[in-house]
Amino acid sequence: MSLKYEIIKTVGKSRRGKLYTKHGVINTPAFMPVGTCATVKAMMPESVAATGAEILLGNTYHLMLRPGADLVEKMGGLHKFMHWDKPILTDSGGFQVMSLTGLRKLTEDGVTFSSHVDGKKFFLSPEESIKIQHKLDSNITMCMDECIKLPAPYEKVKKSVEMSMRWAKRSKDAFVDRDGYGIFGIQQGGDYEDLRAYSAEKLKEIGFDGYAIGGLAVGEGQETMFKVLDYAPQMLPEDKPRYLMGVGRPDDIVGAVLRGVDMFDCVMPTRSGRTAQAFTRFGTVNIRNARHREDPRPLEAGCDCPLCRNFSRAYIHHLQKCNEILGVMLLTWHNIRYYQRLMQGLRTAIETDTLQEFAAEFYKDQAQGDIEEL
Amino acid sequence: MSLKYEIIKTVGKSRRGKLYTKHGVINTPAFMPVGTCATVKAMMPESVAATGAEILLGNTYHLMLRPGADLVEKMGGLHKFMHWDKPILTDSGGFQVMSLTGLRKLTEDGVTFSSHVDGKKFFLSPEESIKIQHKLDSNITMCMDECIKLPAPYEKVKKSVEMSMRWAKRSKDAFVDRDGYGIFGIQQGGDYEDLRAYSAEKLKEIGFDGYAIGGLAVGEGQETMFKVLDYAPQMLPEDKPRYLMGVGRPDDIVGAVLRGVDMFDCVMPTRSGRTAQAFTRFGTVNIRNARHREDPRPLEAGCDCPLCRNFSRAYIHHLQKCNEILGVMLLTWHNIRYYQRLMQGLRTAIETDTLQEFAAEFYKDQAQGDIEEL
Repeated sequence: MSLKYEIIKTVGKSRRGKLYTKHGVINTPAFMPVGTCATVKAMMPESVAATGAEILLGNTYHLMLRPGADLVEKMGGLHKFMHWDKPILTDSGGFQVMSLTGLRKLTEDGVTFSSHVDGKKFFLSPEESIKIQHKLDSNITMCMDECIKLPAPYEKVKKSVEMSMRWAKRSKDAFVDRDGYGIFGIQQGGDYEDLRAYSAEKLKEIGFDGYAIGGLAVGEGQETMFKVLDYAPQMLPEDKPRYLMGVGRPDDIVGAVLRGVDMFDCVMPTRSGRTAQAFTRFGTVNIRNARHREDPRPLEAGCDCPLCRNFSRAYIHHLQKCNEILGVMLLTWHNIRYYQRLMQGLRTAIETDTLQEFAAEFYKDQAQGDIEEL
Repeated sequence: MSLKYEIIKTVGKSRRGKLYTKHGVINTPAFMPVGTCATVKAMMPESVAATGAEILLGNTYHLMLRPGADLVEKMGGLHKFMHWDKPILTDSGGFQVMSLTGLRKLTEDGVTFSSHVDGKKFFLSPEESIKIQHKLDSNITMCMDECIKLPAPYEKVKKSVEMSMRWAKRSKDAFVDRDGYGIFGIQQGGDYEDLRAYSAEKLKEIGFDGYAIGGLAVGEGQETMFKVLDYAPQMLPEDKPRYLMGVGRPDDIVGAVLRGVDMFDCVMPTRSGRTAQAFTRFGTVNIRNARHREDPRPLEAGCDCPLCRNFSRAYIHHLQKCNEILGVMLLTWHNIRYYQRLMQGLRTAIETDTLQEFAAEFYKDQAQGDIEEL
């Protein structure tokens, strides 16, 4: 086990921790911006760091296709290639590959699939995925698993989770232990409590540096997700980080932290930055809306990002109407900064034992909605 | 006359000057990046400043359509709107409007045209153009003129330059004098020396803070352009800045500085940044070319821009192949920085009386071409 995790404070189920990697410390609860193709879209790496992000997520599927793991390795690894010297977590590629319906064939051994870029055939197995993540020099390698859409019948989920646990063992066996690097197992089991428990037991038998909760945020809705999160995190080892994959919206994150989750990733802040949607203290704002056309006010008063410090809503609205790249750059920066401010707020609230108050104010502010039109 | 221009050194026809505006000093020879729609495409304004640019060009045509001059004025002017507190020069809009072949009608009074955005009808005259540029709070207002494609028959150019000179007078009369703001006249006359002389005399009679050389870089080729530049700049007042509009490639600029030009603007560095073309000491490089795929070297050794300092050619190639916005951001930054390094080199060479050596080395380096393939 080569990643040290230190829990410095707990409040209820919530935890304030520090995860130590070769490339630096990650303060948890943490949100990881997504850097799919070796870049957080529309952001300079220095700017990502300036938002407070301490770790990025890289996508094995995209990187194995372009530019290829061998090339990244030859260039000195993903950190050097993309000029990001802080920690990186990579997914296994399995989730994307299995989304290629019609283009892929799944067996116990692994998945054969055709690239969405040029149709070229590839094979991805737990062993191959771990090897690729090693070449990328990922600080946190993820097991390869099968992630199925919810709702799904019990027998289907059971069969899937059983295979995922065999794949977890194969992933762990393929992982090369190094100081400051680690591998996370992924709990599956859909919304069936006994299958979640089965999965957790299997993963603990194998032993991992951290444990992800997989198979959520796949269409089941927040209510079902929170129901699962009411029990699933507690099935995982208390002394290891818990990572809820692919989540989520700000209120998903607050709800999950209250239920004992430590790490998150989601394309939401970056993708929304490209579709004119901004996250703010008072809910989401669509800056293309005509009401912003002549609004001299900042997007979010009190936010310290360049968008809110230096520009008016009118300007951002203008950039969006003209499809200017700077509009995407600024909104992406704001959104990532918003998420990092949220995580900082959650961490401080746990440290100071004010998490309930923090959450209450968060929900109240979000419900209030955007400032009134001028 | 409200813009002070100081020439601190001359070498042959070349001049090293300082142009003082309300928003700061412009060291000449100067290159102005183009910020068409109130943004230099894909650049944060701080980053534009970091390249060494001391003045931007804004486009009256684009801004009058979106977001509209009244809105920009209401938001405190273009500097505040786009968060750029250094000088701004705006064109008159005439050039773009007259390019709208089929969509516009030209009379002595002005031009009626339909917006390329939504077909809405607009009228632009010298008076209207100056009024718009005033609302934008432009430090350097440009006269409205007619700019025709070359080659063109003598009588056509003569008729056009005569109208442009009447428009120059109307522009000057419409301009509201303010401290730290000024208006430039535009010499026309195509490649006819006597018409250039006529135009220069008319402009001098009216009197301007600076003088542009218009009607070049419109398809005539570098040879013809340099032939005109062999005499045209010297027809203009020696104690005022001379601005060659819409020029150009690095070798155009070096040639024009040798012929006594002080200011330039061109979309080349920004537009090329969006089409994978990089300007370097050793000529242009198309980073999409397969030869860069595994090249760990910087784009241009010795360049201090973020692209060259932090990334490999392989990485930039990868970003371009994946159509990542960061590729556009980095290449645009590099290209603008390249242009600013070139201008800095020219300024220093004039100061130190080494302009001929500088130019000789520039042409030698450019001719050498890109570094050898690995």
